[in-house]
Amino acid sequence: MAFTTKASISTFGGTLLKLTHDSPTTGTPMALNLFLPPTQTAAARSPLLIFLSGLTCTPDNCTEKGFLTPHAAKLGLALLWPDTSPRGLDIPGENDSYDFGSAASFYIDATAEPYSAGYKMETYVAKELRELVLAEFADKLDADRVSISGHSMGGHGALTLYMKYPGVFKSVSAWAPISNPSKCPWGEKAFAGYLGDDKEAWKKHDATELVKGWKGPLNCLIDVGTGDNFYKQGQLLPENLEKAAKDAGVEGLEVRYHDGYDHSYFFISTFAEDHVKHAAKFLGL
Amino acid sequence: MAFTTKASISTFGGTLLKLTHDSPTTGTPMALNLFLPPTQTAAARSPLLIFLSGLTCTPDNCTEKGFLTPHAAKLGLALLWPDTSPRGLDIPGENDSYDFGSAASFYIDATAEPYSAGYKMETYVAKELRELVLAEFADKLDADRVSISGHSMGGHGALTLYMKYPGVFKSVSAWAPISNPSKCPWGEKAFAGYLGDDKEAWKKHDATELVKGWKGPLNCLIDVGTGDNFYKQGQLLPENLEKAAKDAGVEGLEVRYHDGYDHSYFFISTFAEDHVKHAAKFLGL
Repeated sequence: MAFTTKASISTFGGTLLKLTHDSPTTGTPMALNLFLPPTQTAAARSPLLIFLSGLTCTPDNCTEKGFLTPHAAKLGLALLWPDTSPRGLDIPGENDSYDFGSAASFYIDATAEPYSAGYKMETYVAKELRELVLAEFADKLDADRVSISGHSMGGHGALTLYMKYPGVFKSVSAWAPISNPSKCPWGEKAFAGYLGDDKEAWKKHDATELVKGWKGPLNCLIDVGTGDNFYKQGQLLPENLEKAAKDAGVEGLEVRYHDGYDHSYFFISTFAEDHVKHAAKFLGL
Repeated sequence: MAFTTKASISTFGGTLLKLTHDSPTTGTPMALNLFLPPTQTAAARSPLLIFLSGLTCTPDNCTEKGFLTPHAAKLGLALLWPDTSPRGLDIPGENDSYDFGSAASFYIDATAEPYSAGYKMETYVAKELRELVLAEFADKLDADRVSISGHSMGGHGALTLYMKYPGVFKSVSAWAPISNPSKCPWGEKAFAGYLGDDKEAWKKHDATELVKGWKGPLNCLIDVGTGDNFYKQGQLLPENLEKAAKDAGVEGLEVRYHDGYDHSYFFISTFAEDHVKHAAKFLGL
């Protein structure tokens, strides 16, 4: 077993595993949580939904507060919560900001020094961790049925990884995603720091740019709260993604705006059932 | 309005209010959370379920991680999460232990100095706060339909306040309650500190003693995880409560043991729906 099991917790009839492993991609130990629903058999392995968390989070925040688990348990869906960045690389300044460095990887492979050393969270999530979890739990999980979702920075991660790796994920959903990072303060700071100043290079990591080249339906659900201060401040820009998809003739993008809802886990948990059901639909459940 | 509103948050179609007020009972500011389900009318005010939290908790832990809210929202039930002790009395040693003093009131009125100064959480919860919430939200809440529940130390609080104030609460439920505090290390430490060494005086605050004098059905649901380390260590002793109820001929006590479940919010949230439905049944929903 490549993973060390820190805890095995009964919940909603299934098992929540708190795991760690040493990642060659990031060069650090990495923590993750994995929920296995009540029953899997060799003939009926569970599909998997990955949830990418937002700024400041560890794998625990959404595991404890997102309320995806009861709905996943009911449908027979496994859940994976990765961490939001490498931890402990000791890069100078890594821990100084809530929106850059530690817990703020933006799920891209950094190309600019010094973050290029281990901030490779695109490769870590989309390849290393996904493949490792599917291999280590091959008797329980169906490698051909994986979807991805996320919140805020993790919504950006979910949307971009979905479009960067066509066919790997069957559907995508996001709560309050950073939808056009090249055009908002959070994204500008992160992309300049991780990728450098060439804004052409940023486009490969921006959902609003990527959707212009998407073929087929997007299989995407997005929820946004109109009381979300980050939405009001122009950090999320979901309308830009909607417009780009529409202009490019891309179908299968549903964006819902919810009156008064904020950016918190009270918002995420409220719509967790819808996102689990959205994934379940594309995962054959 | 006796309360100061620190936050008003949309969740599950209703509103979560984070409130504070100055309590004459404790002599301190007190924090609480209140969930109001989607709709109330003068003709159809909501019943209220109080949840008392366990050691180390603030009102936020269960609000964020207990997942009572979606089930309450669906049924039209309001929820109230009080704090677990006064805060800021600056009694020497108050903050030194996780299981005594701050966040560990045991929901009794202390009679021993120095805690008798403000550790009056029985009166605070059962009278002051309950009456204040019902009065301030009289247009939304039905004062005649209130139930109580809790976890661990809060399960002890729920069971004892329910039996100390017959008729005030229509039903009671508890997750992993400290069921016989006179006979376990947590309870012995707390009762000695808050009440002094006269063990006869402890009996008035011990569910296993109180149930011997209970008239009528208990309307009580209790869940316990068999993987709960505190259960295994003899801190909870639900069997003592079961035996005392049986010996006294008290009916309406259902205690369920769940294989492998622990003491955490992953256990609480798993059975939250059952506890909300238990209360709802006695509250006419």
